[in-house]
Amino acid sequence: MMQTTRGRLSIVVVGVLLLGLCGTRARAQMMTPSGSQWWPSPWGATDEAGASNRMTPEKVLEAVKLIQTGKVYRLGRVYEHGMPLRGQRNYKLTLPTVPTGGPFGENKLVFNDEMVCGELGQVGTQFDGLGHIGVLVGKEGDLNAARFYNGFTAAEMTSPYGLKKLGIEKVKPFFTRGVLLDIAGYKGRMLEKGEEITAADVQGAMSKQGVGDIRPGDAVLFNTGWGSLWMKDNARFDSGTPGIGLEVAKWLVEKQVAYVGSDTWPTEVNPNPNPNLRGVVHIELITKSGIFNHENLDFTELIRDQVYEFAYIFVPVPLKGATGSPGSPIAVR
Amino acid sequence: MMQTTRGRLSIVVVGVLLLGLCGTRARAQMMTPSGSQWWPSPWGATDEAGASNRMTPEKVLEAVKLIQTGKVYRLGRVYEHGMPLRGQRNYKLTLPTVPTGGPFGENKLVFNDEMVCGELGQVGTQFDGLGHIGVLVGKEGDLNAARFYNGFTAAEMTSPYGLKKLGIEKVKPFFTRGVLLDIAGYKGRMLEKGEEITAADVQGAMSKQGVGDIRPGDAVLFNTGWGSLWMKDNARFDSGTPGIGLEVAKWLVEKQVAYVGSDTWPTEVNPNPNPNLRGVVHIELITKSGIFNHENLDFTELIRDQVYEFAYIFVPVPLKGATGSPGSPIAVR
Amino acid sequence: MMQTTRGRLSIVVVGVLLLGLCGTRARAQMMTPSGSQWWPSPWGATDEAGASNRMTPEKVLEAVKLIQTGKVYRLGRVYEHGMPLRGQRNYKLTLPTVPTGGPFGENKLVFNDEMVCGELGQVGTQFDGLGHIGVLVGKEGDLNAARFYNGFTAAEMTSPYGLKKLGIEKVKPFFTRGVLLDIAGYKGRMLEKGEEITAADVQGAMSKQGVGDIRPGDAVLFNTGWGSLWMKDNARFDSGTPGIGLEVAKWLVEKQVAYVGSDTWPTEVNPNPNPNLRGVVHIELITKSGIFNHENLDFTELIRDQVYEFAYIFVPVPLKGATGSPGSPIAVR
Amino acid sequence: MMQTTRGRLSIVVVGVLLLGLCGTRARAQMMTPSGSQWWPSPWGATDEAGASNRMTPEKVLEAVKLIQTGKVYRLGRVYEHGMPLRGQRNYKLTLPTVPTGGPFGENKLVFNDEMVCGELGQVGTQFDGLGHIGVLVGKEGDLNAARFYNGFTAAEMTSPYGLKKLGIEKVKPFFTRGVLLDIAGYKGRMLEKGEEITAADVQGAMSKQGVGDIRPGDAVLFNTGWGSLWMKDNARFDSGTPGIGLEVAKWLVEKQVAYVGSDTWPTEVNPNPNPNLRGVVHIELITKSGIFNHENLDFTELIRDQVYEFAYIFVPVPLKGATGSPGSPIAVR
Repeated sequence: MMQTTRGRLSIVVVGVLLLGLCGTRARAQMMTPSGSQWWPSPWGATDEAGASNRMTPEKVLEAVKLIQTGKVYRLGRVYEHGMPLRGQRNYKLTLPTVPTGGPFGENKLVFNDEMVCGELGQVGTQFDGLGHIGVLVGKEGDLNAARFYNGFTAAEMTSPYGLKKLGIEKVKPFFTRGVLLDIAGYKGRMLEKGEEITAADVQGAMSKQGVGDIRPGDAVLFNTGWGSLWMKDNARFDSGTPGIGLEVAKWLVEKQVAYVGSDTWPTEVNPNPNPNLRGVVHIELITKSGIFNHENLDFTELIRDQVYEFAYIFVPVPLKGATGSPGSPIAVR
Repeated sequence: MMQTTRGRLSIVVVGVLLLGLCGTRARAQMMTPSGSQWWPSPWGATDEAGASNRMTPEKVLEAVKLIQTGKVYRLGRVYEHGMPLRGQRNYKLTLPTVPTGGPFGENKLVFNDEMVCGELGQVGTQFDGLGHIGVLVGKEGDLNAARFYNGFTAAEMTSPYGLKKLGIEKVKPFFTRGVLLDIAGYKGRMLEKGEEITAADVQGAMSKQGVGDIRPGDAVLFNTGWGSLWMKDNARFDSGTPGIGLEVAKWLVEKQVAYVGSDTWPTEVNPNPNPNLRGVVHIELITKSGIFNHENLDFTELIRDQVYEFAYIFVPVPLKGATGSPGSPIAVR
Repeated sequence: MMQTTRGRLSIVVVGVLLLGLCGTRARAQMMTPSGSQWWPSPWGATDEAGASNRMTPEKVLEAVKLIQTGKVYRLGRVYEHGMPLRGQRNYKLTLPTVPTGGPFGENKLVFNDEMVCGELGQVGTQFDGLGHIGVLVGKEGDLNAARFYNGFTAAEMTSPYGLKKLGIEKVKPFFTRGVLLDIAGYKGRMLEKGEEITAADVQGAMSKQGVGDIRPGDAVLFNTGWGSLWMKDNARFDSGTPGIGLEVAKWLVEKQVAYVGSDTWPTEVNPNPNPNLRGVVHIELITKSGIFNHENLDFTELIRDQVYEFAYIFVPVPLKGATGSPGSPIAVR
Repeated sequence: MMQTTRGRLSIVVVGVLLLGLCGTRARAQMMTPSGSQWWPSPWGATDEAGASNRMTPEKVLEAVKLIQTGKVYRLGRVYEHGMPLRGQRNYKLTLPTVPTGGPFGENKLVFNDEMVCGELGQVGTQFDGLGHIGVLVGKEGDLNAARFYNGFTAAEMTSPYGLKKLGIEKVKPFFTRGVLLDIAGYKGRMLEKGEEITAADVQGAMSKQGVGDIRPGDAVLFNTGWGSLWMKDNARFDSGTPGIGLEVAKWLVEKQVAYVGSDTWPTEVNPNPNPNLRGVVHIELITKSGIFNHENLDFTELIRDQVYEFAYIFVPVPLKGATGSPGSPIAVR
């Protein structure tokens, strides 16, 4: 059989293949564990930037209009020892002596460096890239069977030294309209783990806050209050989380947003009300729709100032082949 | 002797101390290898944010006015194997298998992480924080004798797990007016290593480009052409560099800029025309004036579009206690 | 189809599978790129210790008899910045300030730590474990298709956080008879890269040195002289290497040795005289026969003292799931 | 003043210095927080190998005589996720994809590597080198004021990229007589945290076990039973520990042993019965006497077989400039 360069396979394709009927890449609808085939992307079969393509000059100008006072809010948390870490993930910073170098010259310059080690795109405030989340559509252990955004397979993306496809360096900078939906404010309490933010909650919060609409390319941020546990009660913070479910995720896709974010580690509700599902919002947004997800944000100051609409800016650190990025977005109004 | 909490000592103080005349922290002028005493800072004796304090709402609004077309330029380079690295510094990214986790749930989610290791604030495009550069003002090996911005001593800052003072997380986000001075364009050629950009060069480039003035809080970027060697001829790139010297540095301090940047690894000329000096521009800007320095930027697209004035945005990654930050600034016009 | 727990597949099995004839794990001979099937191992289908199983009490006692003078030789090189590293491999050690901690107590204890980062089983003097080398016996990207010692597949072994099978911690300590074959001494010169050590060379060196035989469980070390380039001419050292080829490898397998070693980075000749082959000695010894390979050893002192037969001791560092181990073997006579 | 190359200073010296009377390195007795001056070492003022100098050929031959059956016991624990780690120390191993490389050649070789990050000499089973523990003998922050084995100062040893003095690569391989003192067996129970092993306990255990004496160059290992908590109850394991105090430490120094070890993380009792003291046994053994300390050993199999006297072998991994070493010692009888 002639394989296309991207060597795609799937359960359905394998079936067809055995009948000897399939010589080219199947682009017809095929069923996957997450429903119908999600590729090619609206931005073409080779696109690796996903919904960051919605960052047009027009969108920048729309966002700029929201800057009225010049006040800047930093939304990212500090990366530090003791912050919650999922699973075996790790973050460590050490200083190689103090000072690291010098004195040099008659002017006796000295300098310090730092040594950092860890899963740097997936610890603390973390921006999920398109290479982070995929779906197994065939048998486990077949790298052609794990599919990511735009249908890229793990086999296409595999490399010991960084993703060959969908690396974070392919993402365009975000300068867009940001909308904070303070669901905890709307409900008058911190949401609980496993509590799903419904479409009705979203509409209620929008009405209460006076946010008229969600537009293509927007960054939509959800405040659940869960972030107040950060470094206060890491065990509880980590044990589950409130968040959006498939209902709101599909609405966000329909609205063609570029970006979601929250004060929780997954943005989506965990555990899912359907106990058989894991990370379905991630798949709906990232894998199927190319929409980015920024986790563990801190909205304290925005909420204190009742700022719900703003220019939102984030530039991923272009670590070649990384699955995500560290860094702090800012809101400017 | 009563020591102040910050326990300051210096050569002069030691002399005085032996005479038993000194009971309080000396704030009078004292000579250091880099000239007279530079602390306390204009922002007070406890300030750790330096010239990022010039990021006022007014400055943001000034910068916003420069956004006319909504076009965004990314000025940072990709972090990757094979990029130039100074001394023993290191950058390494690996993927812990592909996929790292899964499949999970009936929806069969899989995910990837990345493992990063290196001097992450001091490799590739790097933003020098105020804890990066200091001056030895006493005897080597005495941690009270190495002084940094605002007079903080290495002893005050020392910790194996990150700087206790002047960590990068203390720096405020930059959203300011940016000015690119294309010195290579002005001279019609790439500058050579050891070639100092003079005040006359700066004035010439400003005139040619139609840049009227440099204002407090500006980010001033220097294009030398040297960046064209990046990953093309790393040995030459690393062997030295053109850049600004003390003359231009002092002028920048006088202009009260917040931030300098360049397409070279130190921004300043190397070797210095005075062979006894090392990194004097770093000391003048960072240590003495709290002005930040972003190295290894890429101005290719700005120059292609002849964009010399723009909104300039950079948010350091808040790695607690780090000496610098990775990440890509953007220019927006 | 019922899969066995180890879920084995291979090219041949796939063929059979399509005909629906194969319901159990095929243990019959099947052809692989490296010839016929090499599993199950002589130590059973679940063995993960390979030829370290030859480390019996009797072998220890045999080795002990060789200790006559009590002189100890360290054969491992120091791990340090500037040592040759293959490909993108990395080794970095930093000290997190000096001191790292303290002073503590009235006795004012201080302490230092070190931070290490790198491919620690595969840099410098390196001991190849059984999970290091395998053979692709099916299509690329199918983790069932890469087979290692005892037929374990990459799918069985895969984990982001260490090998689940054949990790270095499964290897038994080596305390055995060691034999150094000084091929460079026999030939009167350093061997050249691409120069294969022949069976005749081995016999010649054994005769010259008065080594009567090679016995089951022995550690056999080859001195080529190539190690003299270490940190003197890393580029040449890395560009290729003299070493043993399939002829000598098969003889070592026949002799049932436990362990080979050399003063080069692969022990085997590189490039192979057959330009289509890569690492065939690794496969013959490690993958097919479970024989370990210690690279980048230093025999200078043994040769100076004309010591060719000795007790040989090495205990791999039990890094769970690692592919290899750092550390220095010793020879005692 | 002429400074010696090692530039030594101390509280007393400073006093003398101010009177202008001191032109050379002071070798006279001076008081330190740990008592009188401990340098120069019995092996000379430049020695960096400490009590590993007791590893003579004669000692090896003495140890060899203890090998009667050829049985080998591995005494080191596996390095793995979930093992107890002190303070902010870290250990992480990941596999950069599986496989890391290949397929190469017609023979289709594939290979795996591992990426390791952490304080590798000071996690898990850890061998304390002579650069690990020192004493502050002057004011904090003066690197000349922290003294280590043989009087080396932190200033002499300081480097961001590894200790310049007393690095672990200076230690000679251990092949010696080993004696296990099963204090838990003698007492019929696991010792408790804060419980000090007394000289009487040692004599009692020696009598019960039939161990006649402790000799110069011996490795003396203490079983407290505390190791049974390893990865079973890490919090309790870490909260304190039984172990030897100054009484037994001084006796070990008097006996001129080379090496101590235990199944606890510090070997010494913690907290010390004197609440003002921290790590005094470390200082007595390592800093003052050059005797090495191996922590977190596992004696389960030795005790099961009632093996108390054996050849003891350990070769530190020569990580240049490291403060300690990973790796597993073996006992052979």
